[in-house]
Amino acid sequence: MNKIPARILGIDPGSRVTGFGVIDVSGREHFYVASGCIKTVPNAPLAERIAVIVKHIDEIIRVYQPHQAAVEQVFVNVNPASTLMLGQARGAAVAALVMGGLPVSEYTALQVKQAVVGQGKAAKEQVQHMVVQMLGLSGTPQADAADGLAVALTHALRNHGLASQVGSGMRVKRGRFQ
Amino acid sequence: MNKIPARILGIDPGSRVTGFGVIDVSGREHFYVASGCIKTVPNAPLAERIAVIVKHIDEIIRVYQPHQAAVEQVFVNVNPASTLMLGQARGAAVAALVMGGLPVSEYTALQVKQAVVGQGKAAKEQVQHMVVQMLGLSGTPQADAADGLAVALTHALRNHGLASQVGSGMRVKRGRFQ
Repeated sequence: MNKIPARILGIDPGSRVTGFGVIDVSGREHFYVASGCIKTVPNAPLAERIAVIVKHIDEIIRVYQPHQAAVEQVFVNVNPASTLMLGQARGAAVAALVMGGLPVSEYTALQVKQAVVGQGKAAKEQVQHMVVQMLGLSGTPQADAADGLAVALTHALRNHGLASQVGSGMRVKRGRFQ
Repeated sequence: MNKIPARILGIDPGSRVTGFGVIDVSGREHFYVASGCIKTVPNAPLAERIAVIVKHIDEIIRVYQPHQAAVEQVFVNVNPASTLMLGQARGAAVAALVMGGLPVSEYTALQVKQAVVGQGKAAKEQVQHMVVQMLGLSGTPQADAADGLAVALTHALRNHGLASQVGSGMRVKRGRFQ
């Protein structure tokens, strides 16, 4: 890929809301492209909810043409029914990415917080704050959209040798370019 | 559709093995077309496991060109990690069906047993036995494949006004043709 910017689609799946964020990575720089969230109707039949997720991700891939995808690993919920629904939403999202021909990487919430904030115990607001800083956004994106951007940034930081301005100093993470 | 036979693809999702069965329904008759199971490697990355499920279902749709799909609703497992994986496999399967343009109906294990055996407490072997009888098979299909055929038969019996030779007598279920 060399100097051609890599475009990364980050996905944060949830049982009701799936956040997404698209960024461009060029050398050590990263640029905001798009973000948002896909909402499903809680009591609609599963096939309908999955159709909403799949068709939106399909559209995001068609419109923004990302080269790689990164998906946040989800927590197992205390409620088994919620865990099942979360799994179904996540399975559908990954299926849409796979069918869209994208290589899919997975990151735990811990890895996302460590990559973006610099420590695994960071609060949700700190992740949002760092996403705004790292992408030079003029406003704060909605929480799920910010999580989508955060997982895209995590993939960039772990795989593209990008510089991450974190905490007190400059931290450079080196990695292979997939 | 009238006299053109309807082809139904039944799917029984599992965290490791996804069973499938394809049947043709013409009036009150039903015919075996195909069945089998999709196996994923237990410790492979999620994206790989989902790719296996999605690509196989995609191929089944391309080869057999079903008109409708029926999916068994899964049990919530005592193990949250298994429930999550089961959900992910099921979400991926439904996503592949939705992307293949198929209308998807869902049936609980209770509905499948009631439709095929005539009572909700039927053992797995009774379901297999009735699948063999109803489709006039010369051998017994593998357990997951039989479950795929059973959910396809359930959809047929509940939606196509088919006769079901169950238990002591003839039972006719009438329904709308979707």
